[in-house]
Amino acid sequence: MQSRIRNEQLKEKIMSPMEASKLIKDGMVIGTSGFTPSGYPKVVPLALAERVKRDNEKMKLTLYSGASLGPEVDGAWAEAGILAKRLPYQTNKQLRQDINCGKVEYLDMHLSHSSQYLNYGILPRVDVAIVEAIAITEDGNIIPTSAVGNSPSFIKSADKIIVEISSKQPVELEGMSDIYMLENPPMRTHIPIKTPGDRVGTPFIVCDKDKIAAVVFSDMEDHVRDLAPISDVDRAISKNIINFLEKEVSLGRLTKNLLPLQSGVGNVANAVLAGLCDSTFENLVCYTEVIQDAMLELMQCGKIKKASACSISPSPRGLKSFRENIDFFKDKIILRPLEISNSPEMARKLGVIAMNTAIEVDIYGNVNSTHIMGSKIMNGIGGSGDFARNAYLTIFSTSSIAKGGKISSIVPMVSHVDHTEHDTMIIVTEQGVADLRGLSPKEKARLIIENCVHPDFKEQMRDYFNRACEVCQSCHTPHILEEALSWHANFVETGTMKK
Amino acid sequence: MQSRIRNEQLKEKIMSPMEASKLIKDGMVIGTSGFTPSGYPKVVPLALAERVKRDNEKMKLTLYSGASLGPEVDGAWAEAGILAKRLPYQTNKQLRQDINCGKVEYLDMHLSHSSQYLNYGILPRVDVAIVEAIAITEDGNIIPTSAVGNSPSFIKSADKIIVEISSKQPVELEGMSDIYMLENPPMRTHIPIKTPGDRVGTPFIVCDKDKIAAVVFSDMEDHVRDLAPISDVDRAISKNIINFLEKEVSLGRLTKNLLPLQSGVGNVANAVLAGLCDSTFENLVCYTEVIQDAMLELMQCGKIKKASACSISPSPRGLKSFRENIDFFKDKIILRPLEISNSPEMARKLGVIAMNTAIEVDIYGNVNSTHIMGSKIMNGIGGSGDFARNAYLTIFSTSSIAKGGKISSIVPMVSHVDHTEHDTMIIVTEQGVADLRGLSPKEKARLIIENCVHPDFKEQMRDYFNRACEVCQSCHTPHILEEALSWHANFVETGTMKK
Ligand SMILES: CC(C)(COP(=O)(O)OP(=O)(O)OC[C@H]1O[C@@H](n2cnc3c(N)ncnc32)[C@H](O)[C@@H]1OP(=O)(O)O)[C@@H](O)C(=O)NCCC(=O)NCCS
Ligand SMILES: CC(C)(COP(=O)(O)OP(=O)(O)OC[C@H]1O[C@@H](n2cnc3c(N)ncnc32)[C@H](O)[C@@H]1OP(=O)(O)O)[C@@H](O)C(=O)NCCC(=O)NCCS
Repeated sequence: MQSRIRNEQLKEKIMSPMEASKLIKDGMVIGTSGFTPSGYPKVVPLALAERVKRDNEKMKLTLYSGASLGPEVDGAWAEAGILAKRLPYQTNKQLRQDINCGKVEYLDMHLSHSSQYLNYGILPRVDVAIVEAIAITEDGNIIPTSAVGNSPSFIKSADKIIVEISSKQPVELEGMSDIYMLENPPMRTHIPIKTPGDRVGTPFIVCDKDKIAAVVFSDMEDHVRDLAPISDVDRAISKNIINFLEKEVSLGRLTKNLLPLQSGVGNVANAVLAGLCDSTFENLVCYTEVIQDAMLELMQCGKIKKASACSISPSPRGLKSFRENIDFFKDKIILRPLEISNSPEMARKLGVIAMNTAIEVDIYGNVNSTHIMGSKIMNGIGGSGDFARNAYLTIFSTSSIAKGGKISSIVPMVSHVDHTEHDTMIIVTEQGVADLRGLSPKEKARLIIENCVHPDFKEQMRDYFNRACEVCQSCHTPHILEEALSWHANFVETGTMKK
Repeated sequence: MQSRIRNEQLKEKIMSPMEASKLIKDGMVIGTSGFTPSGYPKVVPLALAERVKRDNEKMKLTLYSGASLGPEVDGAWAEAGILAKRLPYQTNKQLRQDINCGKVEYLDMHLSHSSQYLNYGILPRVDVAIVEAIAITEDGNIIPTSAVGNSPSFIKSADKIIVEISSKQPVELEGMSDIYMLENPPMRTHIPIKTPGDRVGTPFIVCDKDKIAAVVFSDMEDHVRDLAPISDVDRAISKNIINFLEKEVSLGRLTKNLLPLQSGVGNVANAVLAGLCDSTFENLVCYTEVIQDAMLELMQCGKIKKASACSISPSPRGLKSFRENIDFFKDKIILRPLEISNSPEMARKLGVIAMNTAIEVDIYGNVNSTHIMGSKIMNGIGGSGDFARNAYLTIFSTSSIAKGGKISSIVPMVSHVDHTEHDTMIIVTEQGVADLRGLSPKEKARLIIENCVHPDFKEQMRDYFNRACEVCQSCHTPHILEEALSWHANFVETGTMKK
């Protein structure tokens, strides 16, 4: 493992995770590698949590990352009460609870804003960066593992850097990353990527080696998670999206190789992609955030030629297949910094087809991706806004009902807006598709109600809309303010949105 | 005037406005030049309205434009009942009423989406384009007047083109426009503009001369409007913004020449800019949509070096000064197509400082720019989202109260969301500034309540927020769903938001 530290001097910095954890002091800002349960540091965060609990130490930290992290950070640190502030995204159960009872302040940000805020000097600088690496080069530069995320910005900003050299991450990952950094305005120029497969940077993250304060060895795997089996609802959503895309091809608006695909995270997103395997589309490319199982499978069956992302985050089964075929995947996958993978400039230039999942959608096409009943955070907006706002096509999908049918995921007014009516284009449920492009609010409402709402809620929704039109004499966006959020209030009070 | 038609063949197409108007048939899609009351066609639209009224003709049209238009189109066509559908923006009183009673379907779109939707083949093609011009070149290309707007896309899309040669628009406008067009993905490349003053295109709009079906002469001026005198509230808002920017400079985040400024339309926006005259900032540049009076004055006093926009839209007084000093302004102003002036790529690359006006803002920083009491459209989102979403700094300002103090412009929950909490950064009222960057929702709420809410509503707002925190046990974004929109409902019912 020592051979992974190609700079002799830095071998003197080898220490145990516990020793390295002592670099982290109360009140500090910590920035970690990692994006979804992939490429994040493990042994140092665990050592810190252990020490804090053992010694009953006072320790409150601000934690920056690329996106969510595995349980060895978000879970362990929440459990140990270490977190004061967290950004820009999380998916951890314990941490979510802590955020939703005021223990942790959470900044739910557009992912593309996170490194930018740091580079612009708006967020406090990073005191200590902890990054998982394949190796350190002769010059002290860092080869990332399965995620690039915000590591380049954290390494640039940090006073001190702790490197976790992972023995579990395959050395073949070296060369998969393409690190290109943006200057701040007014020095910023355009991003020279013309197609998703272009390499425009270095295979390592430039690092001032004098800032590397500790090097530790890690034998812990990414804590990847199983995907739920694809349900009938997921399959119906996937089929509806594919039918819609096929119609676009037949109308001459898209060709059979579509445009670069971006796909959100989670079960529905994976199922949608999986459906492409049996489609007539071919020579596809992806410009996305995260590579999940279905994307790997689509490469193996030859449907996808190239995929640009900022992390590889498969299930345990997907990970096994990825590792076994890593040479096959190596020239097809490019991992980029978040600021590049989620760049609005790239999304609009390439004309990305953005496919993300909603918690709820309202009859005018506003989308809530983050809040349960308007108040409690679920995960966060993640990169969905980065892509949705600037994409060629913006597709949001959701099951038409939730919680066994007690909740309609189409509501009169969403209880929180993450994507406005101006940004959303195509709404898909297992019931059908609503293509909102070129429609006025009332036209959108009629289409969403007829095509997307679950039959159990259709009459109730038509009734709301008709009465709203009557009350405001068919004004631009009819609402009955006293009733607009009553479906949610009803659910909270009675356990169902049904009247 | 004939000399303005530099192509001999096209002189044969000269006709009267009334004759030209006959090219317009029931059910057609019409695309016009113009952006705010500037650069729009006048004599043909008026002739059409007259004819329809006189002959009681059946005529329902879809109207595309760059942004709002003068009363000779939006007003006259609404009055004559000609409009079935309108996009992407309007500010006309009669038309607003027609939209808010269901007579006209209105698509309130991000301006940067409008030409894109047309170019992508999503919106129906233009049957007839009507464009105001300074001249037609030897090759049949068109020299725009005081606005470029969406004219290039409409001219490209249209079956037939009517050109209104204006005798009132000064010939010196020739050379001010810089027409650069985007390809559709996947052929799209980056926009080669590096600084706001760069010229990268042609001074004319490329036009297939065989599509020019009529040339008419017009002696009508742009129907520019007076600005309201700057009020104490406007002045306080302006001062607060300038103080904030000065603090950013002192923190080293900005230099004294700031970053390219974008400024919204209307009285508040103009007042904010006017305040810059006495500031210490210098060598400013603008990358914006519309050039109003204050921007012209800032050029004259040497504060602003260059301004890129897609129209010049001063008051009558400002127009006079512009005309008298047109040679002075000529090399300082560049007029671009909307797709370029409002490009998200440009806003993020240049690091624009976006300053726009809100109708209302909520305690979590969500902004409503478009709807009165959640249902009735005011104007539309315009370009505010194009800039706000991708800017270096996103500033929204509003008076803290409206309608003589009966309305608090800061509310528990906005009744419509145009800019989400993820997009907004700085909220300014005459009361003060709330810098929301890097804050969690509860931190944002406390700051907005203390710094921006009017004293008359502060206690009521604190009370809402405190009870919301209690009810949901300090969850991520505390709300009481039954009460969140009750301030609006109260106003509608009782004429005041005061409890
Ligand atoms: C929206 C999102 C939560 C959906 O995730 P998913 O795994 O596909 O969806 P699920 O149907 O399993 O729903 C997740 C949970 O939300 C609940 N839920 C779904 N719809 C709901 C609704 N309308 N009201 C209340 N709860 C709802 C589900 O019941 C489930 O709750 P549980 O965990 O208690 O069982 C997820 O996609 C997300 O966090 N998106 C935002 C970030 C993003 O888009 N990232 C990608 C950008 S590249
Ligand atoms: C928001 C906007 C309407 C403000 O315009 P303005 O002229 O600066 O502001 P005013 O204070 O005069 O308000 C306009 C009207 O809204 C009303 N209003 C303002 N705040 C209100 C509130 N909170 N609730 C209800 N009505 C309100 C005013 O009373 C006034 O009504 P009136 O015409 O009946 O007197 C205008 O900036 C706009 O349309 N913005 C959206 C588009 C945009 O941002 N374009 C620029 C992008 S580059």
